[in-house]
Amino acid sequence: MIKNKKTNNRKKIMICLSGGQDSATVLAWAIKNFDVVETVSFSYNQRHDVELEHAKKLSNIANVNHTILHVNTLKEIGNSALLNKVEKIKKGTNNLPTSFVPGRNLIFSLYASALAYKKGFKHIGLGVCEMDYSGYPDCRDETIKSMEETIKKGFNYDIHIHTPLMWLTKSKIIKLMKKLNKIKWYKYTHTCYNPNKEGISCGECPACKIRIKGFKEAGYIDPIKYQIKIDWGDCKRI
Amino acid sequence: MIKNKKTNNRKKIMICLSGGQDSATVLAWAIKNFDVVETVSFSYNQRHDVELEHAKKLSNIANVNHTILHVNTLKEIGNSALLNKVEKIKKGTNNLPTSFVPGRNLIFSLYASALAYKKGFKHIGLGVCEMDYSGYPDCRDETIKSMEETIKKGFNYDIHIHTPLMWLTKSKIIKLMKKLNKIKWYKYTHTCYNPNKEGISCGECPACKIRIKGFKEAGYIDPIKYQIKIDWGDCKRI
Repeated sequence: MIKNKKTNNRKKIMICLSGGQDSATVLAWAIKNFDVVETVSFSYNQRHDVELEHAKKLSNIANVNHTILHVNTLKEIGNSALLNKVEKIKKGTNNLPTSFVPGRNLIFSLYASALAYKKGFKHIGLGVCEMDYSGYPDCRDETIKSMEETIKKGFNYDIHIHTPLMWLTKSKIIKLMKKLNKIKWYKYTHTCYNPNKEGISCGECPACKIRIKGFKEAGYIDPIKYQIKIDWGDCKRI
Repeated sequence: MIKNKKTNNRKKIMICLSGGQDSATVLAWAIKNFDVVETVSFSYNQRHDVELEHAKKLSNIANVNHTILHVNTLKEIGNSALLNKVEKIKKGTNNLPTSFVPGRNLIFSLYASALAYKKGFKHIGLGVCEMDYSGYPDCRDETIKSMEETIKKGFNYDIHIHTPLMWLTKSKIIKLMKKLNKIKWYKYTHTCYNPNKEGISCGECPACKIRIKGFKEAGYIDPIKYQIKIDWGDCKRI
């Protein structure tokens, strides 16, 4: 996506796109606010690798260049539920889900910044959010600010990490997407931890519950399909 | 390497071991100062992959558990000379060698910390050094301190990054190794950028020159072989 044809002073941003609802919103936000936008997704044997297909689809719709980086090191380090298609998500130590791969978002922001550096981009965008349910410490604002400082020092390069959703609830994120006029993109996002073989969301896992609650609070019907019937009350179609 | 048999209060450290002279010295330092020591090396299609064999050998000699993590993501991101067996090392932009992969040491320290976290280790050790010739900004003390803070926040875990060589010249590093009574380990270290097919160091690349100068200043004969004859003057055998 290239808006400003002048090569000087173009604001260029690399968005970490998981294929979920949050990073799709950051992509829409970036398209409004930057001249050149690209996306990067990480393939790391994740449980819900259907996400990558959604990230590809979203990048196509947004007409942005999309890079997939393979991060197999995480599998070697971890014995995390997210990396294991059999084990169910459950609570682990430190009150963190066993799906927790320590520092995963730090690793992704580092790789995104390295890619940005190579392309001469000075901005990266992440869909992390403190209002989220997960409690992942690498999603917190102070962690991301600290990472930005570390990257500036370690790369000797003036990188800026943008986290426009940091203080937004799910319903506020959905309202932001509506305002950005891209709410239909949510049709191509994936959130569920336990989709069926066709990729249809379960509607009952913690991630689905948070998503459905967010849409209800925002007053919109979620455009994705669920395996169970959801009572949308008087929510509007998007 | 397990010195203290009591499982409580054992100080455990994970050393990033490249197979070079500096990280071998940090390994010797750790064995003197910690109860449990393990090593981790990174395979990333590096130019001098003979390093990994040296890291394995050193870990065997030190009798420590050795993990190799594969970091292929760097190859995907970079077009760096270090990742390219043909292109010669030369100066690139920002006065950095073209071998510069932005944030490589940050990525390695993150992965080492994630592995340490999984094993319940609270210490990691790196052979980085500000006195080094390379000018890599991710070797600097302020960068490593910033990374430590970021990891503490992002992992919610009290990790300590030790860099005992930070302010030492090459000759002082060699003298430290002598004091630690492990100077013979240098026989199993690799430094050269352009070794021949048998892995013999060229003696002429910048890395070899720095190494040879360090040994001469310390007053010892380097125990590795070189393709050219080196005049060791009145340096002592180790």
